Amino acid sequence: MDAVSRLVAIAEIEALKARYFRCMDTKDWDGFADVFTADAALDISGEMGAHPSDDGVVRGRSEIAAFVRNAIDDVTTVHHGHMSEIDVISPTRATGVWAMEDMLRWPAGAPIRSLHGYGHYHETYAKDAGRWFIASTKLTRLRVDVEMPD
Amino acid sequence: MDAVSRLVAIAEIEALKARYFRCMDTKDWDGFADVFTADAALDISGEMGAHPSDDGVVRGRSEIAAFVRNAIDDVTTVHHGHMSEIDVISPTRATGVWAMEDMLRWPAGAPIRSLHGYGHYHETYAKDAGRWFIASTKLTRLRVDVEMPD
Amino acid sequence: MDAVSRLVAIAEIEALKARYFRCMDTKDWDGFADVFTADAALDISGEMGAHPSDDGVVRGRSEIAAFVRNAIDDVTTVHHGHMSEIDVISPTRATGVWAMEDMLRWPAGAPIRSLHGYGHYHETYAKDAGRWFIASTKLTRLRVDVEMPD
Repeated sequence: MDAVSRLVAIAEIEALKARYFRCMDTKDWDGFADVFTADAALDISGEMGAHPSDDGVVRGRSEIAAFVRNAIDDVTTVHHGHMSEIDVISPTRATGVWAMEDMLRWPAGAPIRSLHGYGHYHETYAKDAGRWFIASTKLTRLRVDVEMPD
Repeated sequence: MDAVSRLVAIAEIEALKARYFRCMDTKDWDGFADVFTADAALDISGEMGAHPSDDGVVRGRSEIAAFVRNAIDDVTTVHHGHMSEIDVISPTRATGVWAMEDMLRWPAGAPIRSLHGYGHYHETYAKDAGRWFIASTKLTRLRVDVEMPD
Repeated sequence: MDAVSRLVAIAEIEALKARYFRCMDTKDWDGFADVFTADAALDISGEMGAHPSDDGVVRGRSEIAAFVRNAIDDVTTVHHGHMSEIDVISPTRATGVWAMEDMLRWPAGAPIRSLHGYGHYHETYAKDAGRWFIASTKLTRLRVDVEMPD
């Protein structure tokens, strides 16, 4: 790939990840589903709480959107990404690492009040029909602070 | 527009917005005014507190700089932007969405102690005489936490 | 330099700084040392606490890595960068300003519990043998919040 094609791929993948964050936090679930490949994998095996499957991985675009929606649709969430490291492997494949911070606040009556976490996304991307999608994403943590109700 | 022209425009607009944040937080008010078009519009109609006009919009580069300076010149402020989605519409027009976080701490004696907020900027940009400027900016919020004095 | 060469340099320097943050927070000290030139300078003369030298500057790749490792190897750290302003001066020289936020939490028994700070990095970069490195970095602060043990 030439330099321009690589730069265009990086810019498109960064905008894709921006859409992932914005759709999640504004609860635009159709837009959120649309950032993933049909067979995408969301690996949250390192996270606390109930796991979506034996291995902590949710598989499939619709399943990921449904899982995340169920988890946070009534939660005030703020997810920020920083400092991408995108490696374009081929015209249709790329990997990326992102620093991340998430702040969740549950409604009154929930068993948890808030979570404030920090970590990294480790991702792969695939291009299909002229567009990039998230093919897999795995979250690792540096720190998680949780507040429980009084 | 070709791919390189679009990439250059995105890079220049991202550096422009970086200057907006840095000048605001270091209280460089001449530098801050310089990021806006002469007829720029700052829409904070969704914000709490006193509004600059009936519709919550400040109009004009000098008016925006004076309004923001008056609001935060003696406040310790930190504004961070993340995850830009820049759409270059033409060689001289673009739109952008940014995730944002702001942390304000007022001096002792002020009626408010601190504000910690999260949301998005929705912006338009215009290029004139070889440089990009912010033509309009509107702030929407995901969450705002306020502390009042004891 | 042509537009594409500048864009490639900016993308490489942004990925370099991302590696700086990731290696520091995941305590990958070999990877951390590798982002600096052999004679790099780390200027923390504006920081609190014990200074590494009379002028607050650590000089040399190995010395910087050893100094930072000694300071934070047993501290849970999160460092985020935002909003780069990269100026490519020549094919092998560049400058950059970054907004930053750092969150440090010491283990129990340390004389300090936590630090949460905000500021800017002011940096220079050099390219050698086809790769960019951080040649100098100086930290200025907007705000620092410290918690001491009870």
